[in-house]
Amino acid sequence: MRVLGLDPSLRSTGFGIIELEGNRYIVRGYGTIRPKAKGELPGKLLQINAAVDDLIEEYAPEEVAVENPFYAQNIRTALTLGQVRGAVLVAVAGRGLPLFEYSPLEIKKAVTSYGQAEKNQVNDMVRTLLRIEEAVEEDAADALACAICHLNTRSYQKRLE
Amino acid sequence: MRVLGLDPSLRSTGFGIIELEGNRYIVRGYGTIRPKAKGELPGKLLQINAAVDDLIEEYAPEEVAVENPFYAQNIRTALTLGQVRGAVLVAVAGRGLPLFEYSPLEIKKAVTSYGQAEKNQVNDMVRTLLRIEEAVEEDAADALACAICHLNTRSYQKRLE
Repeated sequence: MRVLGLDPSLRSTGFGIIELEGNRYIVRGYGTIRPKAKGELPGKLLQINAAVDDLIEEYAPEEVAVENPFYAQNIRTALTLGQVRGAVLVAVAGRGLPLFEYSPLEIKKAVTSYGQAEKNQVNDMVRTLLRIEEAVEEDAADALACAICHLNTRSYQKRLE
Repeated sequence: MRVLGLDPSLRSTGFGIIELEGNRYIVRGYGTIRPKAKGELPGKLLQINAAVDDLIEEYAPEEVAVENPFYAQNIRTALTLGQVRGAVLVAVAGRGLPLFEYSPLEIKKAVTSYGQAEKNQVNDMVRTLLRIEEAVEEDAADALACAICHLNTRSYQKRLE
């Protein structure tokens, strides 16, 4: 089972592709989508939409997991984040992939067993779980954590069945 | 000059295509985009995205005008509205069309010269300005008002030049 995790934001959308083989996570790729700073919002949204579409083509994930904020600092931030999520979700639906959403708390718990974890603890745990030695950008680590959260939820559901 | 006005919302995105010939508005089409009630959010966003793309293909507008809320009742509403706007803006950018945004106040003022107008006053004024005799859905009327607002702004700018 291969999953694409995404952590959408206008400046830097994190992505991470993980596969579960037996009980072992295998990282296929990770990084961030950063639209060119120049230009207006619609063009940036299109770049994010096209980049997600390219990722799906390149890595052929079977399912997609996205962090769902349920929260934003203020209305303006929520509108902006919503727009980026819209661009991302259109790409996922356009490829016919099932989408699963997890709250920041669920994602933190999946990698640290502790909902109140700091950002750098999440990053460290993701790198430990996935045996990544190099530094990982925060947004990419969040996307990998989201993919791990989904794979854990999936295998737990399978064990129940 | 032909403009596509849009008033995005998840349930019913209004659209209206108007052309300015001399000093006369000519309505080319209007209506609402309503995603099938069944199904999940990504699929609905994709339907809205595809419908806007189809409208651009069918009516070949030169510019697009969208209502920009700058405001929403709460964070959740803002996230949802943002997602719909994202789906719409990706379609507009994908067709390479310039996008212009207007606040609800600017749009109301454009059709009623009175920012505090009620919804039904906007609807009545739109139908009067465009010589539409039949009833017009509220979301479609809002989209037509947005297109009128853009055409007025454009012709005012031309007179200044």
